[in-house]
Amino acid sequence: MVQKADGMTYAPKGKAAQVVGPGQFRFAAMHLDHGHIYGMCNGLIEAGGELVAVYDSQPERVAAFLKTYPQATVVADERAILEDPTIRLIAAAAIPCDRGPLGCRAMEHGKDYFTDKTPFTTLEQLAQARAVLARTGRRYFVYFSERLHVECAVEAGRLIAAGAIGRPVQVLGLGPHRLGDPGKRPAWFFERAKYGGILCDIGSHQIEQFLAYTNNTTAKIQAAKVANYNCPQFPELEDFGDLTLIGANGATGYHRVDWLNPKGLATWGDGRTIILGTDGYIELRKYINVGTDTAGDHLFLVDHQGERHVELAGKIGFPFFGQLVRDSLDGTETAMTQAHIFMSAELCLEAQRVAVRVGE
Amino acid sequence: MVQKADGMTYAPKGKAAQVVGPGQFRFAAMHLDHGHIYGMCNGLIEAGGELVAVYDSQPERVAAFLKTYPQATVVADERAILEDPTIRLIAAAAIPCDRGPLGCRAMEHGKDYFTDKTPFTTLEQLAQARAVLARTGRRYFVYFSERLHVECAVEAGRLIAAGAIGRPVQVLGLGPHRLGDPGKRPAWFFERAKYGGILCDIGSHQIEQFLAYTNNTTAKIQAAKVANYNCPQFPELEDFGDLTLIGANGATGYHRVDWLNPKGLATWGDGRTIILGTDGYIELRKYINVGTDTAGDHLFLVDHQGERHVELAGKIGFPFFGQLVRDSLDGTETAMTQAHIFMSAELCLEAQRVAVRVGE
Repeated sequence: MVQKADGMTYAPKGKAAQVVGPGQFRFAAMHLDHGHIYGMCNGLIEAGGELVAVYDSQPERVAAFLKTYPQATVVADERAILEDPTIRLIAAAAIPCDRGPLGCRAMEHGKDYFTDKTPFTTLEQLAQARAVLARTGRRYFVYFSERLHVECAVEAGRLIAAGAIGRPVQVLGLGPHRLGDPGKRPAWFFERAKYGGILCDIGSHQIEQFLAYTNNTTAKIQAAKVANYNCPQFPELEDFGDLTLIGANGATGYHRVDWLNPKGLATWGDGRTIILGTDGYIELRKYINVGTDTAGDHLFLVDHQGERHVELAGKIGFPFFGQLVRDSLDGTETAMTQAHIFMSAELCLEAQRVAVRVGE
Repeated sequence: MVQKADGMTYAPKGKAAQVVGPGQFRFAAMHLDHGHIYGMCNGLIEAGGELVAVYDSQPERVAAFLKTYPQATVVADERAILEDPTIRLIAAAAIPCDRGPLGCRAMEHGKDYFTDKTPFTTLEQLAQARAVLARTGRRYFVYFSERLHVECAVEAGRLIAAGAIGRPVQVLGLGPHRLGDPGKRPAWFFERAKYGGILCDIGSHQIEQFLAYTNNTTAKIQAAKVANYNCPQFPELEDFGDLTLIGANGATGYHRVDWLNPKGLATWGDGRTIILGTDGYIELRKYINVGTDTAGDHLFLVDHQGERHVELAGKIGFPFFGQLVRDSLDGTETAMTQAHIFMSAELCLEAQRVAVRVGE
């Protein structure tokens, strides 16, 4: 399922590490608007979850989904899932502007929710989700795949927590993405109110990584920009965005995202993360080692002892999904805290709100 | 003379491409406070310049200089150089806060001036130099070595100008530097009023690259930060700084500099520049290909056709120096315009002025 030409269908498979037995964690998929739903389902299934049902308004999308997941029962209405008391969690990759309201419906029905990023497109949706979560006690999980579903990014988190680079003082993240054939993108991709803006959308990955790697619970957006440099035919598309933020503990971040990935790159984006510490730095070349190796998951660690380059594809796995399943069942916050998820969401919305438009 | 452990003594030698005959371009060196003076003299000599005299207040520095350049006559007072009508240009790497006033003295004496970066530490010095330059008609050249004296950086400029990546829309520059043994650094290195702050000092390279690669004549600083994360024993040192700026033509830049380079890196800094265009991008790994190759001058070009990695050490040369010599003799502005030099200086001073202090 890993399709390297197109980030929209990037759906890695990892080593299975089941954390539950049969029947213990039943989940359903719905709103298959973004291909990330495949990566989300893969992760939950590898953790021992059982994909029992699927709903989508478009029969052809359901048919395609069933080819990968024949075990799922097709239902004709999302209520059949919402009202099934045996289903613990709903995984969904709806149109971004619909993700927040859908999550609230799920939580109101006693389900935990696992949505593709970005989790919200407005601060009002976020406030509503915070309120529903507080009232229901359910969980609102987000698929921040660029950290959670990338093995070198997982390993970077472990190394930083172990002190490998001293105190982390800056995270620099580059998230170039391939636009590809616009005709193969859904209409909502080009509608600002539906996708939320580039910093809200693919920028949400970046801020989540900043908070996680620097161990910050909050931060302040210092500056942000957006532009449409190369797609005048899609006036509501932003093909470039960046932001810089200052964490409460003094570490800072700079993050750049774009839809300008040239056709000649062997994969959909040369995603990088550089984490600078007081005693070393880590560079991640997530999806390719450009000009050198088309395999992904390259981690470079430089400390006071030397330089190391390790290739991590297939070697680390994705502990997030098992942690999510256990968090859902046990009421713990091992995968990530709800506060971290909502702060990541809030900051990307805030960056989008204050962004200066450039490029004209 | 290339010493890879320490940026302060980075003094590349290039292919000789003489633009003048014997006796046509006599220059002198003075104020040898920064080791960059060696790179500056190498470049001028390779272009055909004759290094005829040297002045410094410290005899041991003069003695060391003469080991590399025995052709220079030692003079006991800088006036002997300033008042020698046969000397066309003065090259100097004074303490940063002294560079502007020295340049004004040189121009007042009818000499062109070639200073190590950063060219000024205050906006007042810049204003004074602008006034003296206007009055005397002389030139104030600056050794922005991180673009001018790095072969892959020279080639990047050629490729961008040839349209290799379409319209350049962002320059991202990382300038990590090794602090090394503080005991081997001069006292002024740790005194804020003398070195001017990290964005003024090593940040000046970065802004010059932004203006050059994006073909901007001016820009606006959007945000900047400085910190002292790791050197509390030197309270006036800034070991981290970053800035983001918006060019008049809509291209933007992000630039990060630091003194946090870990001891295990095989060279003094993993300098990078990534220039993003509408039809491709270029990554420069200037001094090392980390974890892979200790040689420098790696250029990666990705466009719609594919990915290329070229190793350029020894293959490009440094056309800047010959252009500078001809500009000095002919009154042209081929190497770079005076407006570009002063705008680079102004923007780094402005970034330093508005920088938010973080990290505590």
